[in-house]
Amino acid sequence: MNFKMISYILGWILIFESLFMIVPSVTAVCYGESALWYFLITAAVCLAIGGLLIRKKPERKQLYSREGNVIVALSWILLSIFGAIPFYISGEIPSYLDALFETVSGFTTTGASILSEVESMPKSMLMWRSFTHWVGGMGVLVFIMAFLPLAGAQNMHIMKAESPGPSVSKLVPKVKSTAIMLYKIYFVLTIMEFVALLICGMSVFDALNTSFATAGTGGFGVYNNSMGGFPPKIQIVVTVFMILFSVNFNSYFFLICRKFRDAFNTEVCVFFVIVAVITGLITINISGLFSTVGEALRHSSFAVASMISTTGFGTVDFNLWPELSRTLLVLVMFIGACAGSTGGGIKVSRIIILFKSMAKELLVIVHPKQVKKIKINAHPIDHDVVRGVNVFMVAYLMVFVISLVLVSFDNHDMITNFTAVTAAINNIGPGLELVGPTENFGFFSAPAKAVLIFDMLAGRLELFPMLLLFTPATWKK
Amino acid sequence: MNFKMISYILGWILIFESLFMIVPSVTAVCYGESALWYFLITAAVCLAIGGLLIRKKPERKQLYSREGNVIVALSWILLSIFGAIPFYISGEIPSYLDALFETVSGFTTTGASILSEVESMPKSMLMWRSFTHWVGGMGVLVFIMAFLPLAGAQNMHIMKAESPGPSVSKLVPKVKSTAIMLYKIYFVLTIMEFVALLICGMSVFDALNTSFATAGTGGFGVYNNSMGGFPPKIQIVVTVFMILFSVNFNSYFFLICRKFRDAFNTEVCVFFVIVAVITGLITINISGLFSTVGEALRHSSFAVASMISTTGFGTVDFNLWPELSRTLLVLVMFIGACAGSTGGGIKVSRIIILFKSMAKELLVIVHPKQVKKIKINAHPIDHDVVRGVNVFMVAYLMVFVISLVLVSFDNHDMITNFTAVTAAINNIGPGLELVGPTENFGFFSAPAKAVLIFDMLAGRLELFPMLLLFTPATWKK
Repeated sequence: MNFKMISYILGWILIFESLFMIVPSVTAVCYGESALWYFLITAAVCLAIGGLLIRKKPERKQLYSREGNVIVALSWILLSIFGAIPFYISGEIPSYLDALFETVSGFTTTGASILSEVESMPKSMLMWRSFTHWVGGMGVLVFIMAFLPLAGAQNMHIMKAESPGPSVSKLVPKVKSTAIMLYKIYFVLTIMEFVALLICGMSVFDALNTSFATAGTGGFGVYNNSMGGFPPKIQIVVTVFMILFSVNFNSYFFLICRKFRDAFNTEVCVFFVIVAVITGLITINISGLFSTVGEALRHSSFAVASMISTTGFGTVDFNLWPELSRTLLVLVMFIGACAGSTGGGIKVSRIIILFKSMAKELLVIVHPKQVKKIKINAHPIDHDVVRGVNVFMVAYLMVFVISLVLVSFDNHDMITNFTAVTAAINNIGPGLELVGPTENFGFFSAPAKAVLIFDMLAGRLELFPMLLLFTPATWKK
Repeated sequence: MNFKMISYILGWILIFESLFMIVPSVTAVCYGESALWYFLITAAVCLAIGGLLIRKKPERKQLYSREGNVIVALSWILLSIFGAIPFYISGEIPSYLDALFETVSGFTTTGASILSEVESMPKSMLMWRSFTHWVGGMGVLVFIMAFLPLAGAQNMHIMKAESPGPSVSKLVPKVKSTAIMLYKIYFVLTIMEFVALLICGMSVFDALNTSFATAGTGGFGVYNNSMGGFPPKIQIVVTVFMILFSVNFNSYFFLICRKFRDAFNTEVCVFFVIVAVITGLITINISGLFSTVGEALRHSSFAVASMISTTGFGTVDFNLWPELSRTLLVLVMFIGACAGSTGGGIKVSRIIILFKSMAKELLVIVHPKQVKKIKINAHPIDHDVVRGVNVFMVAYLMVFVISLVLVSFDNHDMITNFTAVTAAINNIGPGLELVGPTENFGFFSAPAKAVLIFDMLAGRLELFPMLLLFTPATWKK
């Protein structure tokens, strides 16, 4: 294990975290909030420790898969530990565990909150919450790699560990250039949403926060009723952008290159079909609850977009909808967004690979000698990718079941426990019942919160980086 | 597809079903019940159609994996279709779909009933219900193979398709001899329970029914409160035998051969550890509900044995227990019994393979060049078995999720839907809430019942035989 290299990169993580503090600090200055000091103190601490760690550049730069995974896991944990400081020292969140929960929820773009009331918070604190979504959405290390002078081969292990989806494809030969390209797309889309929201009449502060939270598919709101108080046109804009940020960013790159066939690949098409079908079913199912079908469609499309993108915004309390709608929403929570987007969940591409491999298995029983590779977008899928998806599913199930049992020690009802774990591991935010869209996670015991913090991180990093931290072999020579 | 051979074997299935009718017929004679005629009519119909199908022995006996799976699936469906006739024509169950549900639930050893009241049924009907458990527990085709003059190589495909567990091991070189051996063990264990229950003061009728339902890990009771009305010593005997019938029958063979190391293999040991740990946790969790710890232990051990063996008997209404106990019971419903037992669920051996393969995957990330095979009982596990387990889990998840969505169209609460599918696919019987131990499945709509019928069959046959029926390629030349 190359510990020197690990601490060197973790040092850079802290340096960047101190830079991230500029955003809430500027907000505090604009609104004349005394919370400015808490951000400056945190930034100073990060800068000091980070500076200490990057003092000496390691000679041996070699990073293997193991180090790549460990770096990613530790980076996210470190970011959250230091990111929670402003909430805690300002007294806005009196318990450090709660502050950590909120920060992990932010960086992992979960959006599950322990706060019952957000409107009384200083604006700079709200901005920090939303900004953590934006930073976490695209991945911190991918961002840093776009600037840090590291060799390409090392970067690939880190990018693989941090990027969501069954396989990582480089848009251009260099990892660094790919990272920059993806961040450009992310930046432009965020600005597009910001401008669209301004045009629809949102204030600059609200539009900025909403854009950050949508872009990262996070879901922290700046109002207690999330998006419920905004006019329909704003809800529709947010719906559209939640969907846009759930699409594989590679597709935007292909669109720019006018490679339309690559842009509208199998995953993207299946994603849109799922959204359309589930929205249709829910609209019919809830049409009785609203005065017009159009209103039912607006709320159902918002809810589906919010859940499949794993954002977690709400317009109405879907916990009160009929059972079919609730079940379908839980279903899309698991499906999640496209690979290579900022969304969480199992990912549409994995679901496609699972279905195709199942069809193949049945054919193998029928014709044992005609074994063909699975194809997606007319390309055969590598055996290792299929195996990786199977392994991911097994790990996912295990983490899910063990978390569910541990959380159920709190003795809340089963749907609350089940959807709390679902919302955490899929990085969504709200679930059903006690963790429904109008509720929060504050009532859980400390051990249950710790389990959910683990789940949020494990979900965002697609399990293995977090699981490796707890594997003894990782730390052996 | 060798259709002649398929219809020949299906013919034998019907002949045997007519023989099975002897048991309820004798019961009807003993109690002077007019229901006798319904069994005789059904037997005559089975005999006539079966006789027609076996008139000519096919020349080409060759059966491939595809035919093996199709034969198994069709046999179970046929058995259920004809087995439901007595319930229907007697008017005891006025709807044929309900009668089919009850019969499938019987043969698949699920034990989920659509009846709200069983005590008023003729004793011969109750005996038929229990007897279907006994027939289904060990497998119908394995039973028939012990008598039918078929070549060994053909039998293996059928045995593989019908026997539960990730891999089928023959105790002795010949499939036929293995089948006879397993049925002997089954028979002796059933008689042991019957005698034990008689000694504890049960009536002959009750003891016979209870033994049949325990042996098949089915769970149909002859009283409305299942096992709740019996004295503690009888409940304890049933607990012990539910556990005994959940153990891989190969272990009993090894015990007889004095191969103790083989008898107490990894799966059996892990199974007992799971039972002990979960029983312990639930006993602590529910101790406040009972006057003594002993009483809590008796009820918790009964519930755990009933759920992990997938029998489904009840002594008290565990639906009213605290949430941790309920969650743990749902967890053991999924784990299920050992492979090669009469119990259902995912099976302990699969869970072990999943955990071991996950540990291996983490090691592969740490040391990519040191890839070792997984070992169980000091034997390396074949790559195909591990792959088969992964594929099974994926198929299981898919069938589960699709069933859940379809059942939720009925608009009952989510725990009812979730545990109804859980109880059906794992062949347990009761679930929670509306399908709790004191309730029944009668209230579901016809489409939901059809889905649950499919799930019971798919669960008993471990998915692939049933899935193949709906794969177009199966039926192509």
